[in-house]
Amino acid sequence: MIDLNADLGEGFGRWELTDDEALLASVTSANIACGFHAGDPATMRRVCEQAAAAGVRIGAQVSYRDLAGFGRRAMDVPAGELAAEVAYQIGALEIFARAAGATVSYVKPHGALYHRTARDAEQAAAVVAGVRLSGTPLPVLGLPGSALHAAASAAGLSIVEEAFADRGYRPDGNLVPRSEPGAVVTEPAEVVKRAVGIARDSRVTAADGQQLTLRARSLCLHGDTPGAARLARLVREELTAAGVTLRAFA
Amino acid sequence: MIDLNADLGEGFGRWELTDDEALLASVTSANIACGFHAGDPATMRRVCEQAAAAGVRIGAQVSYRDLAGFGRRAMDVPAGELAAEVAYQIGALEIFARAAGATVSYVKPHGALYHRTARDAEQAAAVVAGVRLSGTPLPVLGLPGSALHAAASAAGLSIVEEAFADRGYRPDGNLVPRSEPGAVVTEPAEVVKRAVGIARDSRVTAADGQQLTLRARSLCLHGDTPGAARLARLVREELTAAGVTLRAFA
Amino acid sequence: MIDLNADLGEGFGRWELTDDEALLASVTSANIACGFHAGDPATMRRVCEQAAAAGVRIGAQVSYRDLAGFGRRAMDVPAGELAAEVAYQIGALEIFARAAGATVSYVKPHGALYHRTARDAEQAAAVVAGVRLSGTPLPVLGLPGSALHAAASAAGLSIVEEAFADRGYRPDGNLVPRSEPGAVVTEPAEVVKRAVGIARDSRVTAADGQQLTLRARSLCLHGDTPGAARLARLVREELTAAGVTLRAFA
Amino acid sequence: MIDLNADLGEGFGRWELTDDEALLASVTSANIACGFHAGDPATMRRVCEQAAAAGVRIGAQVSYRDLAGFGRRAMDVPAGELAAEVAYQIGALEIFARAAGATVSYVKPHGALYHRTARDAEQAAAVVAGVRLSGTPLPVLGLPGSALHAAASAAGLSIVEEAFADRGYRPDGNLVPRSEPGAVVTEPAEVVKRAVGIARDSRVTAADGQQLTLRARSLCLHGDTPGAARLARLVREELTAAGVTLRAFA
Repeated sequence: MIDLNADLGEGFGRWELTDDEALLASVTSANIACGFHAGDPATMRRVCEQAAAAGVRIGAQVSYRDLAGFGRRAMDVPAGELAAEVAYQIGALEIFARAAGATVSYVKPHGALYHRTARDAEQAAAVVAGVRLSGTPLPVLGLPGSALHAAASAAGLSIVEEAFADRGYRPDGNLVPRSEPGAVVTEPAEVVKRAVGIARDSRVTAADGQQLTLRARSLCLHGDTPGAARLARLVREELTAAGVTLRAFA
Repeated sequence: MIDLNADLGEGFGRWELTDDEALLASVTSANIACGFHAGDPATMRRVCEQAAAAGVRIGAQVSYRDLAGFGRRAMDVPAGELAAEVAYQIGALEIFARAAGATVSYVKPHGALYHRTARDAEQAAAVVAGVRLSGTPLPVLGLPGSALHAAASAAGLSIVEEAFADRGYRPDGNLVPRSEPGAVVTEPAEVVKRAVGIARDSRVTAADGQQLTLRARSLCLHGDTPGAARLARLVREELTAAGVTLRAFA
Repeated sequence: MIDLNADLGEGFGRWELTDDEALLASVTSANIACGFHAGDPATMRRVCEQAAAAGVRIGAQVSYRDLAGFGRRAMDVPAGELAAEVAYQIGALEIFARAAGATVSYVKPHGALYHRTARDAEQAAAVVAGVRLSGTPLPVLGLPGSALHAAASAAGLSIVEEAFADRGYRPDGNLVPRSEPGAVVTEPAEVVKRAVGIARDSRVTAADGQQLTLRARSLCLHGDTPGAARLARLVREELTAAGVTLRAFA
Repeated sequence: MIDLNADLGEGFGRWELTDDEALLASVTSANIACGFHAGDPATMRRVCEQAAAAGVRIGAQVSYRDLAGFGRRAMDVPAGELAAEVAYQIGALEIFARAAGATVSYVKPHGALYHRTARDAEQAAAVVAGVRLSGTPLPVLGLPGSALHAAASAAGLSIVEEAFADRGYRPDGNLVPRSEPGAVVTEPAEVVKRAVGIARDSRVTAADGQQLTLRARSLCLHGDTPGAARLARLVREELTAAGVTLRAFA
């Protein structure tokens, strides 16, 4: 049994990016952009309605305030500001989730905030403080062993570890950085094979050919690439065929 | 008995504008900026905490998305976008109100949105639609006889009529436009006198000297002028001395 | 002889919209977004380089400050602010044009600013005041008979009248509003036919079937629709075949 | 002989921060905010006009794109984006400087960009690349020994070293970080004394009491603190009384 998550609602005003409707047919959890790196209010509303209609769980994809950089530029945001920015985004999304008859069920940092909080204990604690401002002990989606997960656990929040079927792994379990060869797996058949390996066997082949044990309760699919929706459907079908149940994490 | 409201939290990052702490000592309702014309998340959090500590009611001061113009430039925002923008702001404020042990208790549009929705039925309906997305029938603060109030009433929301002690009135009950002489009353003693007249006697002297009947459940004080906090205290003291009870509207 | 213009560089950060390279192969004038409704600095730089390399004239596509609305929401910007905003955008584009060995050769307002200044004399004068701040008497592209052109002429700027091959015209020469049927012509063959009619014969068929005389020195093609680049190439080919010389206006 | 520089035009829309007119009476160089951390177009225009009228040299105070953080939060901006962002800001300011009969005469990074480029060779090179896009070999104001100055020199730009009369220095010539005691000198008499020491004798007392040799062609005064304009006047008067000529660097 595994959860399938993807980033959704990553347009802004006139600009579209993710094929939200098609992705919602495959994933079990939707990381919805909250306006800081992408996601205008009307888009947030629409995607919440679509997710609720599709029975897909809604999560807040919180980010640095950086539309121009799509949240991919790490920022030295002081802890108090960062916590408040995270809470602001969760609150904004919550109103649309609720209006759609659903609720915000988890939090996942986006882009540079995701990578920074994997190792930066101060920013990780700030994100967790922001989540706690919501008054609900929302689970935090992140990398296994991340500073974010350490901070979330310390604060009494549950954590959900995720893996990537379309990213290369180092033998130590870390992702191959995007600046190095082997960072991204583009061949659909290979992505599907890795997805099944992770979901069914908790195993993935590292960049050096080694077999790696990788426990993950959620599998992340990237939504902003051409063919993303098609690949998501393929992954879903093959996981199902392999006997894996797709279900949002408990 | 009357409510005293003022705009609070109208700084942004490095910039400060309103003396929030001092104003909270006088008002009974705080219209807190929600980030679209002013009000960064950390400021919103702080002002919600201060308002809750002071026992002052929290309202969402929603606005056009216009930091550069401080929300004072009317915009032709399509209804669907405007409704979602209003809901987004309410949701963002709600998380900080809740974290402070309070709640968002009403909505008041800011600046150009306030004036536009006084007469523009379509935008008025959009603001009300945004309020209703919150799932709570929040009262709407506005001008007596405004399109906003008509839309709110039609949608089953309660309305709270407000008056201005520091603005000139026309004989027909409308405000003297800022482009005309007599638009703003600056003399503190005169402001106080008008406040008492409105609160105790439901009367105000119009620009032509005529006595005007003006029913209002809330009195608005401007918070972004020099001496605003001092004037608010004076108004509070004189209203109390005149036998008027200051209390947030029911 | 006619000029062919299109909006270019209308992406922002992660988001792309216009197929700049392909459009540059067909147009003679590029209206480059300057960052207020679209167009981040890196995109502006790239498109200026591409336009210069293609020998295409560079124009400043100035706009309201409205990324969320893509500049399509009219705003009541005070004249002094609007003039400064227009100048700011021209200056920012000028540095990239110059670095590419070219220059900003004209100004064209975008979206809501284009339509507003067609009739609003105050905003039209503000845009012209902004153009004049540049110190160069840049020609202003706009609708024939527009308030913008009146203001530009009064200020000693030359004006360039443009027509639309893909928009419906009323018998009085105005465009059919987008809210009405017949506003947009989508059939490529029909667009091409109208382009030739306008460019060669100064004639276009109005919505009621009447033949309309329409003098234009530039023909605008929309760049943000699917198939825009292909259509632009087709228009270019058919105009050339019809004996029309495509050249940037003098 | 020394130059006196301060940050000006650091308001944004409704928000004011620096007392531009008063500061212009004392400084010889004005670092004008260009819209990314502060400085709306109308303010930029006004301050350029005031600076030109006062005979004060105009410099571009370029920054990260971060209004919410006032440019004080370091950002990992890729080199190509950063260079274009710097050029964009210079171009925007240039149009207002030119309209005022002046010109942009130098560049000084603001806040986090200033501190980051003091040590980060890649971002320093990106800022210099942005300056070079302007086509004018503008001098770069910065810390003695900074990576920014190394990059500027390598690119053939002249450099102007600055010192701070109101900041504490370590024995190695670096500033005491703001997180440590002794970072800021607040006593006006002490600031003035240090200013004279730096300007006349190239000497300043370090935090440990040691006398430090410090060569600087410009002295920076902070403009965004209460009493900044008064202090600037005092420094100017005392420097003049001490026989130091105040003049913009050549």
